[in-house]
Amino acid sequence: MSEAAQTLDGWYCLHDFRSIDWSAWKLLTSDERQAAIHEFLGLLEKWNVTENEEQGSHALYSIVGQKADFMMMILRPTMEELNEIELEFNKTKLAEFTIPTYSYVSVVELSNYLAGESNEDPYQNPHVRSRLYPKLPQAKYSCFYPMDKRRQGNDNWYSLSMEERRNLMKSHGLIGRSYAGKVKQIITGSVGFDDYEWGVTLFSDDVLQFKKLVYEMRFDEVSARYGEFGSFFVGNLLSASKLHSFLYVN
Amino acid sequence: MSEAAQTLDGWYCLHDFRSIDWSAWKLLTSDERQAAIHEFLGLLEKWNVTENEEQGSHALYSIVGQKADFMMMILRPTMEELNEIELEFNKTKLAEFTIPTYSYVSVVELSNYLAGESNEDPYQNPHVRSRLYPKLPQAKYSCFYPMDKRRQGNDNWYSLSMEERRNLMKSHGLIGRSYAGKVKQIITGSVGFDDYEWGVTLFSDDVLQFKKLVYEMRFDEVSARYGEFGSFFVGNLLSASKLHSFLYVN
Amino acid sequence: MSEAAQTLDGWYCLHDFRSIDWSAWKLLTSDERQAAIHEFLGLLEKWNVTENEEQGSHALYSIVGQKADFMMMILRPTMEELNEIELEFNKTKLAEFTIPTYSYVSVVELSNYLAGESNEDPYQNPHVRSRLYPKLPQAKYSCFYPMDKRRQGNDNWYSLSMEERRNLMKSHGLIGRSYAGKVKQIITGSVGFDDYEWGVTLFSDDVLQFKKLVYEMRFDEVSARYGEFGSFFVGNLLSASKLHSFLYVN
Amino acid sequence: MSEAAQTLDGWYCLHDFRSIDWSAWKLLTSDERQAAIHEFLGLLEKWNVTENEEQGSHALYSIVGQKADFMMMILRPTMEELNEIELEFNKTKLAEFTIPTYSYVSVVELSNYLAGESNEDPYQNPHVRSRLYPKLPQAKYSCFYPMDKRRQGNDNWYSLSMEERRNLMKSHGLIGRSYAGKVKQIITGSVGFDDYEWGVTLFSDDVLQFKKLVYEMRFDEVSARYGEFGSFFVGNLLSASKLHSFLYVN
Amino acid sequence: MSEAAQTLDGWYCLHDFRSIDWSAWKLLTSDERQAAIHEFLGLLEKWNVTENEEQGSHALYSIVGQKADFMMMILRPTMEELNEIELEFNKTKLAEFTIPTYSYVSVVELSNYLAGESNEDPYQNPHVRSRLYPKLPQAKYSCFYPMDKRRQGNDNWYSLSMEERRNLMKSHGLIGRSYAGKVKQIITGSVGFDDYEWGVTLFSDDVLQFKKLVYEMRFDEVSARYGEFGSFFVGNLLSASKLHSFLYVN
Repeated sequence: MSEAAQTLDGWYCLHDFRSIDWSAWKLLTSDERQAAIHEFLGLLEKWNVTENEEQGSHALYSIVGQKADFMMMILRPTMEELNEIELEFNKTKLAEFTIPTYSYVSVVELSNYLAGESNEDPYQNPHVRSRLYPKLPQAKYSCFYPMDKRRQGNDNWYSLSMEERRNLMKSHGLIGRSYAGKVKQIITGSVGFDDYEWGVTLFSDDVLQFKKLVYEMRFDEVSARYGEFGSFFVGNLLSASKLHSFLYVN
Repeated sequence: MSEAAQTLDGWYCLHDFRSIDWSAWKLLTSDERQAAIHEFLGLLEKWNVTENEEQGSHALYSIVGQKADFMMMILRPTMEELNEIELEFNKTKLAEFTIPTYSYVSVVELSNYLAGESNEDPYQNPHVRSRLYPKLPQAKYSCFYPMDKRRQGNDNWYSLSMEERRNLMKSHGLIGRSYAGKVKQIITGSVGFDDYEWGVTLFSDDVLQFKKLVYEMRFDEVSARYGEFGSFFVGNLLSASKLHSFLYVN
Repeated sequence: MSEAAQTLDGWYCLHDFRSIDWSAWKLLTSDERQAAIHEFLGLLEKWNVTENEEQGSHALYSIVGQKADFMMMILRPTMEELNEIELEFNKTKLAEFTIPTYSYVSVVELSNYLAGESNEDPYQNPHVRSRLYPKLPQAKYSCFYPMDKRRQGNDNWYSLSMEERRNLMKSHGLIGRSYAGKVKQIITGSVGFDDYEWGVTLFSDDVLQFKKLVYEMRFDEVSARYGEFGSFFVGNLLSASKLHSFLYVN
Repeated sequence: MSEAAQTLDGWYCLHDFRSIDWSAWKLLTSDERQAAIHEFLGLLEKWNVTENEEQGSHALYSIVGQKADFMMMILRPTMEELNEIELEFNKTKLAEFTIPTYSYVSVVELSNYLAGESNEDPYQNPHVRSRLYPKLPQAKYSCFYPMDKRRQGNDNWYSLSMEERRNLMKSHGLIGRSYAGKVKQIITGSVGFDDYEWGVTLFSDDVLQFKKLVYEMRFDEVSARYGEFGSFFVGNLLSASKLHSFLYVN
Repeated sequence: MSEAAQTLDGWYCLHDFRSIDWSAWKLLTSDERQAAIHEFLGLLEKWNVTENEEQGSHALYSIVGQKADFMMMILRPTMEELNEIELEFNKTKLAEFTIPTYSYVSVVELSNYLAGESNEDPYQNPHVRSRLYPKLPQAKYSCFYPMDKRRQGNDNWYSLSMEERRNLMKSHGLIGRSYAGKVKQIITGSVGFDDYEWGVTLFSDDVLQFKKLVYEMRFDEVSARYGEFGSFFVGNLLSASKLHSFLYVN
């Protein structure tokens, strides 16, 4: 039996993808639509307060293609809060005009292949804390995909020794680091929570960097031999100010 | 041909996952909604009586993410009773506002790799009985997933000898036992009943323990080489007292 | 090229799984529901006449879990008759309140690995005839699943010699026979008719025997190395007398 | 790189599978249903004219099981004509009461592993022409399935040499030929047109021959090692005269 | 770790496939339908202006078979513009009568296995520019499919050395080039943007060339060993002039 790497776990995370039922949305009067938007903006405002109090964070992106019209990504200290937010959204007027298309449940995770090398409590380390309890950036673009480490024939990640995995992850991490300043990457763990083992959320002001990063990583042994990928979602920042034109119909 | 391990089989088990059609639910009058909730609480009360009479058990959890809004897990002595409960629920008012999203049919199972070492009838052993006919805990969190043992190329569980499987399961079980007091685990067998071979239901007051347990086990040979996993569902306890606010809309 | 085993083929077989749209069903008046049930009972009565004339057989089971609410299994001498029965059912009132969830088209089959050892016409053998043109039992439980023989890498059933397959099937058959009196098994062939190669329908008065039988067989090389399984459905006998309470709503 | 076999290509082919929304169909008045049937018969009559002018062919079968209620198979000289027929059907009254369940786009193909052995233009050969531009038979039964040649590990059809493939196809063809007079087989190529590489449509007056043929072929190396199969559809001839009773409801 | 090939990236690309809800469309008055068509033609006209200003390009094809009724393929300099076009279309009257069936998000890509051999900035090379920012041809037929390079056991594209991949791609490219003048091929990269790694869009005035090209390539090692293909869509040019008859119902 191979030893599991220790992980550091931060805020719980819900990715919630929705399509809009435009035909039904258009049947509302302009006033009804304004009321629905207003109610949703109130929800966002509440989330902003939470974010300012450093009790969570969130992001809103419009998704390109038919997989969804928009994605809400929500971070909170407990699983209950995620459930409550979901429930509160589901009871809004706007939600009546949305169709759930995909969701992902996970927890912000730092895989700690270097753990145990110091006596420090990592949860007290400010650098670690800023990564476990991040404020999501207002980047122009976001990309999300879930992934597994492969367990197939000779390509079985979970049968590798700790040292092999540590070496592979180190080189893998170097690619990620070479994109520092261009792409912000948030890894969330979902073993026991959702169908894949990890979710990857990328943020950038240059959407092409997502392709470059993921493509370059694919040649790295960790992805080439051991990566299994789910669906990819890509979208544009949907700021509160853009929400009105996003939902506007005449 | 390799010998099948003996199993001890207890109560039959139905996991029933549902989403709520909130738009339709909101169209009801407040009185109609109260009546529907009241009727459902009556059903739960009936199930409580059964549980108190030790003729079954049940649990109710709200599920995080879009896979479902809630899960009912029901244990009963016969397959007919599961069918009747399902039928009775389907005929309630509340059910009209739910959308079935997943279900799982199984039977509480103890895989008995150590069978035959004593002359005792295990079904008379109080410790065994408490595991075959369990009272489900009111833990804060629950996690469910179905799984298979792999039969693929060189990784074929069913071609291993009894002794090999016994040794592998022993080390696998040690991990489970190291979570004693933190995670309660109920294994249900579903060969011949549903699409996977087993269902695993975990209960804990610390949701992170699900991730730790499943992740640690994944490095164990039983999971690393031989485990195939279905969808994972995670949720928060939905007590009768929380049901009102869960279903409340204004 | 390996030689195909001869098969003996009996009645054509349709498994038809349906869910009930309870919300719509409840919108009917009690009289309308009675009329719909009465019409369906008339259909069943017609099928009984056919069964008594030994021109076919049928079974009706309520299915546990969300895969379906009930299953109709129908045997007839021709593919046209199956199509007509399906069509006649689809035109009933009750059918308007059902949602098709799965179906399977096949023909009762005896795989004849021992063929050619006598000069007898097997279709005249009364024992063979009773298996090719069976009267379905009124067992308390039924289980259905479709399956393939694997053709994957070194595990390719169709590349084995006739003798290898005959030996493997012989030991496989011994397991089946050890359940004689406990489980009745009907194998239907569906190569060229549906997505898997065979359908397996089990009948028993002890639902746990399905699990024991399928689990024990899984360790047999025929299943362990060469079996690929589809969905499993399990249900309780739905006699005409239980149909009223099954469909009753107040 | 291995050389591709030459193919001869004939008429384009659309298989269009539909289910009927019986509940909605029954809501029409008898006159409205007659008008819809009449309009559809007019379409069939137009297709008959095309068939008589040898500018195409078509077949109509009712499908057994829930995959579809009927299949239209249409052959035409151009892809545009297939698209127009589809469009014309979609605009009929009857189409409003059908639900598309599956379709397949392909072109009648003769794989020409013996090409180049004569100087003759095969497209002028009357025997070849009758196979590329066939008149579909009014056989009692039809079977359709799509298929791929496997490219998996050591079982990679596209890595075999031309000679290996020619030899394998020769023995494969012998099985097909042994069913001459019993089963008519039309192979259509769909590389670049649809999700599988080929479609296989079988016609016979004895539905059991489909099973015998496909099963026997499965032991042939071409299928055993290199065949990947999609869904199988089987049905009964739906002549214009049977169409009235097929669609009749009271 | 193997080195990633450099890519040149041009316009962003959205393939948007839709089916038409003919039953609902027919319920409109003729005037309402004309207004909806007129509005959509206005959108197309706007897109034409963009195309004439060389700020993007687009194509409209009717799709054969049930996968979709039509496809819009849109090229634009930014991901935001794709999102806006999608949003604008979704808010049209016509969109209310369409059902999204598939979409694909990518970016025009030249894989640059020969990069670095000159000092020239390829983005200034007019030949390269015409391929990165192409004007889509008004070819009679189009074919789209997404694809991956395989990472499976011994067939792992991403574990090959740069030189091996370069040699394989060179021979692969020769096939493509032999179709010059017959098939125009646009490769779009979708790593990080959508579920497959590339999209392939083919244009031709002879639909059979799609089959010939894809089939011939399948024997090339790049496809035979390393290609994984998604769904194939094929269609006929849907010019603005044909749009009226396409959408006409009486």
